[in-house]
Amino acid sequence: MATLTTNAPECSDSKLKSVSNGPYLQPDSVLKLSPNEQRTVDHILRTFRCLIADLCEQFNGGHPGSAMGMAAIGIALWKYIMKYSPSNPSYFNRDRFVLSNGHTCLFQYAFLHLTGYETMTMDQLKSYHSTRADSICPGHPEIEHEGIEVTTGPLGQGIANAVGLAMASKHLGATYNRPGFEVVNNMTWCMIGDACLQEGVALEAIQLAGHWKLDNLCVIYDNNQITCDGSVDLCNTEDINAKMTACGWQVLDVTDGCYDVEGIATALSKARDNTNKPTFINVRTVIGIGSKVQGDAKAHGAAFGPEDVANIKKNCGMDPNDHYQVDEEVYEFFREALPGGRDLEQEYESMLKRYSTVYPELSQEFASRMKGELGDWKSLIPHKQDLPTTPTASRKSAGLVCNPLAAGLPSLMVGTADLSPSVNMIWKRKVDLQNPNLKTTCGINGDYTGRYIHWGVREHAMASISNGIAAFNKGTILPITSSFFMFYLYAAPGVRMGALQRLQQIHIATHDSIGTGEDGPTHQPIALAALYRAMPNILYIRPCDSEETAGAFIAALKATSSPTIISLSRQTLQQYPDSSSREGVLRGGYCFIDEEDAEVTLVGVGSEMCFAVGARKVLKEKHNIKSRIVSMPCQRLFENQPLEYKRDVLRYRTTTRVVIEAYAANGWERYADAGYSMHTFGHSLPGKSAYEYFGINEEAIAKKISHLIDTVREEGLDSLRGEFRDLNLGDHSAE
Amino acid sequence: MATLTTNAPECSDSKLKSVSNGPYLQPDSVLKLSPNEQRTVDHILRTFRCLIADLCEQFNGGHPGSAMGMAAIGIALWKYIMKYSPSNPSYFNRDRFVLSNGHTCLFQYAFLHLTGYETMTMDQLKSYHSTRADSICPGHPEIEHEGIEVTTGPLGQGIANAVGLAMASKHLGATYNRPGFEVVNNMTWCMIGDACLQEGVALEAIQLAGHWKLDNLCVIYDNNQITCDGSVDLCNTEDINAKMTACGWQVLDVTDGCYDVEGIATALSKARDNTNKPTFINVRTVIGIGSKVQGDAKAHGAAFGPEDVANIKKNCGMDPNDHYQVDEEVYEFFREALPGGRDLEQEYESMLKRYSTVYPELSQEFASRMKGELGDWKSLIPHKQDLPTTPTASRKSAGLVCNPLAAGLPSLMVGTADLSPSVNMIWKRKVDLQNPNLKTTCGINGDYTGRYIHWGVREHAMASISNGIAAFNKGTILPITSSFFMFYLYAAPGVRMGALQRLQQIHIATHDSIGTGEDGPTHQPIALAALYRAMPNILYIRPCDSEETAGAFIAALKATSSPTIISLSRQTLQQYPDSSSREGVLRGGYCFIDEEDAEVTLVGVGSEMCFAVGARKVLKEKHNIKSRIVSMPCQRLFENQPLEYKRDVLRYRTTTRVVIEAYAANGWERYADAGYSMHTFGHSLPGKSAYEYFGINEEAIAKKISHLIDTVREEGLDSLRGEFRDLNLGDHSAE
Repeated sequence: MATLTTNAPECSDSKLKSVSNGPYLQPDSVLKLSPNEQRTVDHILRTFRCLIADLCEQFNGGHPGSAMGMAAIGIALWKYIMKYSPSNPSYFNRDRFVLSNGHTCLFQYAFLHLTGYETMTMDQLKSYHSTRADSICPGHPEIEHEGIEVTTGPLGQGIANAVGLAMASKHLGATYNRPGFEVVNNMTWCMIGDACLQEGVALEAIQLAGHWKLDNLCVIYDNNQITCDGSVDLCNTEDINAKMTACGWQVLDVTDGCYDVEGIATALSKARDNTNKPTFINVRTVIGIGSKVQGDAKAHGAAFGPEDVANIKKNCGMDPNDHYQVDEEVYEFFREALPGGRDLEQEYESMLKRYSTVYPELSQEFASRMKGELGDWKSLIPHKQDLPTTPTASRKSAGLVCNPLAAGLPSLMVGTADLSPSVNMIWKRKVDLQNPNLKTTCGINGDYTGRYIHWGVREHAMASISNGIAAFNKGTILPITSSFFMFYLYAAPGVRMGALQRLQQIHIATHDSIGTGEDGPTHQPIALAALYRAMPNILYIRPCDSEETAGAFIAALKATSSPTIISLSRQTLQQYPDSSSREGVLRGGYCFIDEEDAEVTLVGVGSEMCFAVGARKVLKEKHNIKSRIVSMPCQRLFENQPLEYKRDVLRYRTTTRVVIEAYAANGWERYADAGYSMHTFGHSLPGKSAYEYFGINEEAIAKKISHLIDTVREEGLDSLRGEFRDLNLGDHSAE
Repeated sequence: MATLTTNAPECSDSKLKSVSNGPYLQPDSVLKLSPNEQRTVDHILRTFRCLIADLCEQFNGGHPGSAMGMAAIGIALWKYIMKYSPSNPSYFNRDRFVLSNGHTCLFQYAFLHLTGYETMTMDQLKSYHSTRADSICPGHPEIEHEGIEVTTGPLGQGIANAVGLAMASKHLGATYNRPGFEVVNNMTWCMIGDACLQEGVALEAIQLAGHWKLDNLCVIYDNNQITCDGSVDLCNTEDINAKMTACGWQVLDVTDGCYDVEGIATALSKARDNTNKPTFINVRTVIGIGSKVQGDAKAHGAAFGPEDVANIKKNCGMDPNDHYQVDEEVYEFFREALPGGRDLEQEYESMLKRYSTVYPELSQEFASRMKGELGDWKSLIPHKQDLPTTPTASRKSAGLVCNPLAAGLPSLMVGTADLSPSVNMIWKRKVDLQNPNLKTTCGINGDYTGRYIHWGVREHAMASISNGIAAFNKGTILPITSSFFMFYLYAAPGVRMGALQRLQQIHIATHDSIGTGEDGPTHQPIALAALYRAMPNILYIRPCDSEETAGAFIAALKATSSPTIISLSRQTLQQYPDSSSREGVLRGGYCFIDEEDAEVTLVGVGSEMCFAVGARKVLKEKHNIKSRIVSMPCQRLFENQPLEYKRDVLRYRTTTRVVIEAYAANGWERYADAGYSMHTFGHSLPGKSAYEYFGINEEAIAKKISHLIDTVREEGLDSLRGEFRDLNLGDHSAE
């Protein structure tokens, strides 16, 4: 059995510590392997590398190189360091492991197999890159499968997720731990490659983890100095250790990351012991070690070919004609993982029992959080009669709805990308999530129980870290982010990963049209809604007033497996208490103002609803045309309605439908025959003037619609098919 | 007159240097102001700050604080450091100035006014935040206006642009400078605020500038430690100087950035002198200095109110009742900027003359580059008969078309976000853009004349830096970027800024559908095309074979005021030499395979064209339905065609139109009655199996279309209006 040598700072001599809690390396310890153990470890390293080479060879593809290079890291993690339970992959207080270099997924899959995760059979391992639709070994790790915490692949996302997972632990621990009862104290371990240190989202997340002093986070850098194009020095020559130190991280080095399991385990153990900073372990490895292309970019993303695979095996002393060789000695080495995990769980369960006796109320709340129960949110949503009836910006309405939710629901963590004064997400007596020792210049401090997050001007990290927070345990924390809608383009890769992973989140996106005004075209979204309306598994909701904003929150809270973007105005908006309806929002679109024998159905959306209402009046008074109005805050919710409902709302058999929205019309063609929309970028002008500048006013709209109706009266409604009419193509700007 | 004291390293005594080239601080100099000059400078600081306060007060809005805090930096830059010519803002070898903290635009506008840019009158200054549509003082600087190099605003973009401008200078200088003829040797100066040091795109760009040792770049950090939420330490506590040093930058400090014009100018001068690294000057300033809210977040984005503005003026010894006070002494101080600029230009022009005598050929090429002439690209595009006819991946076709262009056109700079082996953009004898002293481990080196760029895994910086390269001088450099299409979501904020600024660029986006295969849903784009199809002023082109790929490049090269995304397959694609047409691509859509009396028009796109062709066959043979095929590689180009052409191509009066594309259908409703498309994220499977998994095969498509045709035969074509049919809604995946 491995000798666990403590190396406590207070005593210069090393001494043995008893192992009280499974096989894990104890605090202040260094790992010392006996010669026999070292031989076994070497055998496992060889076995692992040959297995990876075989798995990529079978379908002539995949990413073998880094997985082989990282083998020793994996042994250190899964054998000596990580606390997990293969028989219960979702054991609540497990250490979280994130593979940010997700293309090396075979690394993780193989260790899940070796440590006894039931679903990860050898057959499943062999399904990597196969045509099996039920494979749990996709080309990048996916959250749906056992033992996988988050879906990674797009580089930089995983490390941001890991920061989120560590924040979640830190926050839950600070909230629910009591002396003697560490109900949440898990570590988050994150593997990254060279590429993750180049992606902006990772660099943002690194800053934040250092700022928050997330000492429960350890990033392990597979430093093989190779990416697709060649050696990393083609495009990166920074001093990474100095940089990480400057960002507030503890930096540790391992020089022989290919073989030095002792050194790696000792560094990992130091990371767990550290109580002040996140840890960055710079582990030098060799990509594709043992192959003919080791240390070369060719080892990154292609199989080695049968000849080289045979050579690798020969050099490892293994039979080149035998494939997927994993002998008993290897399985035996990891055998204790299963019972060790069960022991962990049992200890945890019995602690929770004692906790429930000593802290019955807290324990009950914690149990509810563990189950992912949000609590009674319905009673916290303001009633229609309590909402404003005078002109109100919908970003203000969002505050009116969200602030009581945030105050009342401990699951909500609300943050902003440095737009607190603009997005109205601060509630009374909010506490910031901060390291408690931080004393800011402006005097706004906090602690880890805090649920208000200053993300800084880091929209992308905000979204991607929030994915990690939401992924800690489904429903335990519901992250709410906020920024200007335009900057959800920066956040989009993170928002998308949330949708892909079915993680509930609410994104508060204010300043959502040219009504944003003076900030100009850089800040005025035109095309962004088209992205989110097309994106699978996300709701993009654009409410027109306070009542619809309440509806948007209800829809978002009901969507437990989807993120929602609530798209809000900077400018004040008319309120329509007689027309607007939260129930209508839940159906995506609904009849807002009806009119018998209407010739026109105007589709009003969000802050442009006022132009629909105004145009309707002008159409009637000046052009003698009857029109009705449909409000359509959410295309996706509407699309999910039965055909009969959609027919009834849109009345396309009897009316000409015109959508009015200051966005690109793309996608509205499904619901309208014509659009009064934007075809250029915006313009820097006060909001009202910006609308004027682009011809978006009730008179102009009504005039164009009246011309269209003249044509329709002549040619018939059916003539509209196939020729969507852009009613606002005037060249207003220089674009 | 200011004393310019040299401080050359080789001599410890300071000594005077004569001023040979305008009023600028000479190499190895420190600025020493006489007491009189110091008084004038102080007067200008006061005047400037009161002017900013007034300009924000008039319409009760805007961003006064940082502009006021940065006043001394502006004096140092525009008076002592920058080489520019107010009477010719586009003087080729001018120093470039980028305001990355674009919300502080009044800072730049006011200095453009003071230094004599003709269009920047006091009246125009007063148009800031007004309803004047012809204002050249928008809420963020815009490239269209004199003296503005790039449009900034979305934080982090400007510093990336500045890196691009500096790269362009470096590259052009290396290519065209000869001993005694420095035809391009300008500096790029970039102001940033605290926020730019948090945005990922900036952090990526900082790494690259350090890697490339862009010693012609100086970033000036307006370190006021305030963002919207409060003090910066709410969300950032890193050691920025150590971090910049680790990233390979020279770091200089200025402790009193509010008043120490001497110290700032001296630091700026050191930045120009430095010949090894980019320079980062950490200038401590006080936001809103002189106001009651100085040093507070309240000074950031709101007017101070009349009372405080009056106080500011009183404290400055100015009349609180007088507004926009700029006296003769102030104008006099900057008077030399105009003639100084003209002198610079004259010297430059006469150098160019001499250059043309000594280096006639080089000079001719340089003159052509200055004019933005691309050269004879038409002859470099392969003819149809030279393109492959056997199955070929369109990413390979793109290489066949682009490689000769890159080899033959010195304007092209081609780079990749670490996907050289995948995107096929390397041409024979390409030279990398690198610092010539770099010797990489993999042995691939280069120099500044190089035109192949290893961007690393930094898609966002790739796009945003490319904007700067393209903005150096319109047409002088045409940047070509490349990555997987999915990662153009990371790059999207940069791509959008290119479209907004009308900068020609070509983005090579490969692996553009679920055909990407094993990498799985994280790498398979579903919704991204909807964004780019809706985005103003950009072409998203998805060619179906090599001939259409050639057409896509022709369209991209013709679009001199727009970026183009060419969207390409990983997998091999059938070639259609009898049907596909580059001329057709230029019209966006065209009849691909005709059929008399067709009942159905199939719209085929990109790598899904094979399913349209296959379904047509099955429809005929199995279902006895005649169909024709339209290829529509680019919606925007098609939309710009005359109505008659569109009618003729789509034949919606006589056929049922079905689009077949493995993307979300959003937007296709304009051109089709039904779509065979994607409604979920993708799945990790080999490309062919992924299509199968989602029911995208010719048999299934034909069957669904045949059902639809049954309905249409019964209910008539007109019944299709208002009810777009999603023919592929089967729940294939877990999504």
